[in-house]
Amino acid sequence: MKKIAVIGYGVIGKRVADAIALQDDMELTGVCDIISDWRIQNAVRKEYDIYAATAEAANKMKSEGISVKGSMQELLKKADLVVDCTPKKIAAKNVQIYKEKDIKYIVQGGEKHETTGHSFSAENNYKSAINLDATRVVSCNTTSILRTLTALKRADLLDYARGTLLRRATDPWESHLGGIMNTMVPERDIPSHQGPDAQTVDSDLDVVTSAVKVPETLSHMHYWNVKLKRQATKEEVLNALKTSSRIKLIQYDQGLVSNNTIKEMFLDMGRPWGDMYEVALWEDMLKVQGDELFYAYVVDNQAIVIPETIDAIRALTGIETDGAKSILKTNQSLSIA
Amino acid sequence: MKKIAVIGYGVIGKRVADAIALQDDMELTGVCDIISDWRIQNAVRKEYDIYAATAEAANKMKSEGISVKGSMQELLKKADLVVDCTPKKIAAKNVQIYKEKDIKYIVQGGEKHETTGHSFSAENNYKSAINLDATRVVSCNTTSILRTLTALKRADLLDYARGTLLRRATDPWESHLGGIMNTMVPERDIPSHQGPDAQTVDSDLDVVTSAVKVPETLSHMHYWNVKLKRQATKEEVLNALKTSSRIKLIQYDQGLVSNNTIKEMFLDMGRPWGDMYEVALWEDMLKVQGDELFYAYVVDNQAIVIPETIDAIRALTGIETDGAKSILKTNQSLSIA
Repeated sequence: MKKIAVIGYGVIGKRVADAIALQDDMELTGVCDIISDWRIQNAVRKEYDIYAATAEAANKMKSEGISVKGSMQELLKKADLVVDCTPKKIAAKNVQIYKEKDIKYIVQGGEKHETTGHSFSAENNYKSAINLDATRVVSCNTTSILRTLTALKRADLLDYARGTLLRRATDPWESHLGGIMNTMVPERDIPSHQGPDAQTVDSDLDVVTSAVKVPETLSHMHYWNVKLKRQATKEEVLNALKTSSRIKLIQYDQGLVSNNTIKEMFLDMGRPWGDMYEVALWEDMLKVQGDELFYAYVVDNQAIVIPETIDAIRALTGIETDGAKSILKTNQSLSIA
Repeated sequence: MKKIAVIGYGVIGKRVADAIALQDDMELTGVCDIISDWRIQNAVRKEYDIYAATAEAANKMKSEGISVKGSMQELLKKADLVVDCTPKKIAAKNVQIYKEKDIKYIVQGGEKHETTGHSFSAENNYKSAINLDATRVVSCNTTSILRTLTALKRADLLDYARGTLLRRATDPWESHLGGIMNTMVPERDIPSHQGPDAQTVDSDLDVVTSAVKVPETLSHMHYWNVKLKRQATKEEVLNALKTSSRIKLIQYDQGLVSNNTIKEMFLDMGRPWGDMYEVALWEDMLKVQGDELFYAYVVDNQAIVIPETIDAIRALTGIETDGAKSILKTNQSLSIA
């Protein structure tokens, strides 16, 4: 059984750790961080092996009564692959260590494509990641773009796509850091970076995005204008979107009228943290007009990359060489219908 | 001197009244409402003649020490034209009265085009409004769409336009009514109504919009993807936009990075309520890519229709038959550069 280490036990790391623990073909060797407050208590409760990234952190953890299994170096010795979920600058430094130690690694979408030379999105390029030393799971917004546009492309419907991305200002638990109130803050550059980022996975995509921060913390919302290769029916478009198991078609007319109602539904469903791994796309709002397609969807920035990361682990370690099988297995473990 | 009455002294009415009072070729005969609280005190302070829309309202106003000049009927007798700024259902009822009394009237964008058979946007169709009995000044969002797209059309650059409209949830003073928090609420229908609404002024416009409410109260923000008739330079596009005196090109790089900073600048400028009559369009964010154009701008929903309403008064009363002259006169009175 391949041993997987998680470095960085934050918003993404804690979810990745839980998702790994749910799989029957890989093992969570341990989690590593520098925090010693309430956040790491979650790992204690779950009886994960906890490693300290620095000697100072180890002392602090011990003084808080946390049982420390060892140093980051000791964790890396045990692991076949490491998923790095640390903040930007730290991940870049860590990558040097993984390379020196010749350990396979996965970084998150905040890192540059060049860090690994491969960017991953399960439905797109699982195959090209098999047995690689490293990959980068693209960001939440980029993942959603790839899932939806690739579904349209598979049906040979996609000509080009232009999107407006309404970004949550900051994460729920970090509302005091980077939070904004009663205003909107555009990203300076049009096109914004998500279009080119999607092209690191599929260089053929003709996609342009603009992005703006809005004063909420729950999830992103995207509005898309897509030029189709030909006139199509709404049914054809929906059938194309249904070829992705990670797009969930939702109905505005069933009361799902906002980010917060969608969040509540996923909490109702018993998903941990109300996590939505799928792109939630409004079926009844979706409109086809001649060869143009208009739709909107919601992206849970904390959750959408979790199944992708599990698939990336399988690809890099070679546990599974069939992408479709990995996706199905991951979906079942996370209750993705 | 033409005598103008303002019915409804709310967010739009109080601004229209002030703007009329600033003109030297028309006269504010009085304002009429049913309110007797702090809101009408603003009209008292400004020494406007105050009329009561109902007998009950008249009594209430008197009991609050407000000097009531007369009834709505008495105001209408004195006026050559009435600007109706009341809420939706009330305006529809009032229109019957204006028609019976054969008095010219202007309604706001919340009303249907059919109410007047003419929809107004000064730079588009001033001429066709001259000496008409009635017109409708189109809504804030529609006004901004018409100004920008018409500028591109004048330069023969516009093929078609697709926009995402991020709408303020409610007005600042009404944040408790219709306000939303920490979420986004899409409009159910794509296309949203603003595209067809713009076509009531210019039926040739190929424009599709989607709209979503965001949790802020200051102003709307629009993101546009425009297909040009041909490849163009950024300079050509900017020159086209500069042909509208009511589009203000602003610089993100000068710190104007959000709705609230833009609002503060207009407050700094000494505009009443910090009103922004112009469409504030980010010049440095604007991007031309081949025959595609991308830009974003901000719309002050409380203020943008005020200069349009003044021009509409001139057109309907025939005070001025040259639209350009009216626009210039209005601009100067409101300090629009």
